[in-house]
Amino acid sequence: MQERNRPGRIAPAPEHFVSASLQQDIGRHGLDAPRRDFLRKSFLGAAAGIAAVTAGRHALAAEGDPAILQPQPWATSLGQPVAARPYGQPSEHEKNLVRRESPGLTRVSAASVAFAPLQGFFGIITPNGLHFERHHQGWHDIDPARHRLMINGLVRTPRVYTMDDLMRLPAVSRMHFIECGANTGMEWGNVAVPTVQYTHGMLSCCEFTGVPLRVLLDDAGADLRRGRYLLAEGGDGSSMTRTIPMELADEIIVAWGMNGEMLRPENGYPLRLVVPGVQGVSWVKWLRRLELGDQPWNAKDETIHYVDMVPDGRLRQYTSIQECKSVITTPSGGQQLVGNGFYNISGLAWSGRGRIRQVDVSTDGGRNWRTARLEAPVLSKCLTRFSLDWVWDGSPAILQSRAIDETGYVQPKLAQLRAVRGTRSIYHNNAIQSWQVAAGGEVSNVHVD
Amino acid sequence: MQERNRPGRIAPAPEHFVSASLQQDIGRHGLDAPRRDFLRKSFLGAAAGIAAVTAGRHALAAEGDPAILQPQPWATSLGQPVAARPYGQPSEHEKNLVRRESPGLTRVSAASVAFAPLQGFFGIITPNGLHFERHHQGWHDIDPARHRLMINGLVRTPRVYTMDDLMRLPAVSRMHFIECGANTGMEWGNVAVPTVQYTHGMLSCCEFTGVPLRVLLDDAGADLRRGRYLLAEGGDGSSMTRTIPMELADEIIVAWGMNGEMLRPENGYPLRLVVPGVQGVSWVKWLRRLELGDQPWNAKDETIHYVDMVPDGRLRQYTSIQECKSVITTPSGGQQLVGNGFYNISGLAWSGRGRIRQVDVSTDGGRNWRTARLEAPVLSKCLTRFSLDWVWDGSPAILQSRAIDETGYVQPKLAQLRAVRGTRSIYHNNAIQSWQVAAGGEVSNVHVD
Repeated sequence: MQERNRPGRIAPAPEHFVSASLQQDIGRHGLDAPRRDFLRKSFLGAAAGIAAVTAGRHALAAEGDPAILQPQPWATSLGQPVAARPYGQPSEHEKNLVRRESPGLTRVSAASVAFAPLQGFFGIITPNGLHFERHHQGWHDIDPARHRLMINGLVRTPRVYTMDDLMRLPAVSRMHFIECGANTGMEWGNVAVPTVQYTHGMLSCCEFTGVPLRVLLDDAGADLRRGRYLLAEGGDGSSMTRTIPMELADEIIVAWGMNGEMLRPENGYPLRLVVPGVQGVSWVKWLRRLELGDQPWNAKDETIHYVDMVPDGRLRQYTSIQECKSVITTPSGGQQLVGNGFYNISGLAWSGRGRIRQVDVSTDGGRNWRTARLEAPVLSKCLTRFSLDWVWDGSPAILQSRAIDETGYVQPKLAQLRAVRGTRSIYHNNAIQSWQVAAGGEVSNVHVD
Repeated sequence: MQERNRPGRIAPAPEHFVSASLQQDIGRHGLDAPRRDFLRKSFLGAAAGIAAVTAGRHALAAEGDPAILQPQPWATSLGQPVAARPYGQPSEHEKNLVRRESPGLTRVSAASVAFAPLQGFFGIITPNGLHFERHHQGWHDIDPARHRLMINGLVRTPRVYTMDDLMRLPAVSRMHFIECGANTGMEWGNVAVPTVQYTHGMLSCCEFTGVPLRVLLDDAGADLRRGRYLLAEGGDGSSMTRTIPMELADEIIVAWGMNGEMLRPENGYPLRLVVPGVQGVSWVKWLRRLELGDQPWNAKDETIHYVDMVPDGRLRQYTSIQECKSVITTPSGGQQLVGNGFYNISGLAWSGRGRIRQVDVSTDGGRNWRTARLEAPVLSKCLTRFSLDWVWDGSPAILQSRAIDETGYVQPKLAQLRAVRGTRSIYHNNAIQSWQVAAGGEVSNVHVD
């Protein structure tokens, strides 16, 4: 189990799982087609006999397997009572699966990043304890009784709300991804960061709950003819302010909930902005003020930071939408395949423009592509989990995924993106990620044109 | 904020939120219609002016509000670094929102229930730390390296899998509710349990990840002609075994993941069965064996327990599907409305037969009903969040919700259910729940015919 929790060894499926008949099919049709057929039949619940499995090492002999032959202590003793932990915690055996700071990435840890361990995630929901962190001056556990939200600017009646005020208003819940604009930023140049936790780990996905921004704007009597831009201001010491165009207003939530409970302190407790499809810096944490204005504010964090340098040295500004992107999380950099056979390739896709329409996967560095299975529900501006069966024959391979969203936009190759954007950017790298599988099974991050 | 975390006071929306024009509408059309119209317009993003709000106590004067006038400590000091807690925890201000045992419900706490605090949940996802618990002999934190799953019985080749074997197989992720068959059991008789945590708190909802049961049955060469029933056996000391009809097999998952991470120890780590729509006892935890047979097993926990006594003294057996049900979680028993005005009535609906089609809410004990708003996504055998606006005029009220699922089944009144099932059951009470609001604002559990 340890190998799942950190980059390490991952074994193939049991030997018997690649059956004699499948091996014949592989010989006839190539590596992958028969396996897909097998799975389709399985999922449709076809009758037995489709997998004439060999008698593998895991058939019931179980000779010498103490886990089978001896009673385990958990079967012969009284366990822990209910509510032993009124707020539950993960197993002691999962202690390696944690958020990790990249040492040296920033000068101080209060203005840094803790990356989410994508290599250990399942499905699309990010557990709250493993949501990525990005702070500009550290996090506080704010007393909600002392927190206020002000709405001012081009409104008839400026307002100040307490948390109790807000939480009695009509609430909505929506599942959305949040990605830092700088996610995958190291890959612009020639640095190939070793693991998916560090290449793509500024990414999470939750069910967020709060009051629609429109309800508050209505309440304050917003002037929607003159008011074209919103300023969102955070309550921490970093003077975080961001301009948000009012075209995005209909989907914005002033949120207090994530995955059914209150926001975590490091994610903005008790109040943050949720701006679906937009880079995380605009999801202002510890939200204390919204001001409606008639032009962009050119705040510190949208002029000095969060701008994209292009080859002629100019800076692209207000590039806030996170374009369509995907990444394979298993197998991924730093892991180790321990033998030929069946593997379930799995990963995540998302788009700031809407739903994911399709994800293709290549195991030969982009020459051939197969369409992956998407896990329902496929929601707008939300992570989508994809899976693809793969029988590895032991030769070197390069694994890639390529997402297409409902607008028809296709995730670009790294070379395509660099041709337009150069190599000096930090933000908004949504290129196809390549994981190289060596003949020995080692998986590593490579830059492929 | 404290009142949300435990039964207590909940305040109405700010005074100004019920505007002069809304008050006029209320006079014209009754209590609720204009508010619904207001919301519809808001959510559709209509132009300003729909809420001609009065200058209420929260307009920007803010005289004497130290939270506005004085800099808060979190704005003037450096905060905690990233990864201060590599696995995150809730705010210190949320310590009251926990799972709770009902003292005296069982003789020992190792064979008892910890109820989930539904009154504090948002949306449909249950955070893993607050998932309800029901154990028969306590919980253990099993070493996954020593855990095995055996498949035997009417199969060509019995199998034994390690966790590593299983986790390399093709995985699926699905969002489903899980409800103990005994949830709401106290309400069969004349006991009206005071809060929603204790009436309905044996209910949770997660995104579960694992391998489809069909893949394992195929792998073992299951005899699907003779094999009509599955026996699921848990690895703890309670000898938990349950019969599952093979008609349900297509949706069953052998699961290791909940909400993106590994199962929690108290929820079956490292492996449990997910049987969508079926009572929780069949979602066998610490799953160690699946045996395919040709008839039901009549195990201890399906003959002595988990049977329903009907009026003539006979016992209904194998009543495993959780029928369509709903409950209002805010306002709910033990809470206190602190004044007239706008409230967001919110609750949960679910059905073991499929999707929720509609939820109706009554504020007058079932004489009049209005259709609530359902929060997307509405998924099969999954919780669905509903909301309804309500302007309370201060008179006594009885709040009810009534769910209808996609089969057309309508959640019954308590009297209807008792007419068929009597009052001596423990399990499978899906009656409409009534919360009485007294003139003073106290909310309490009442049994209404």
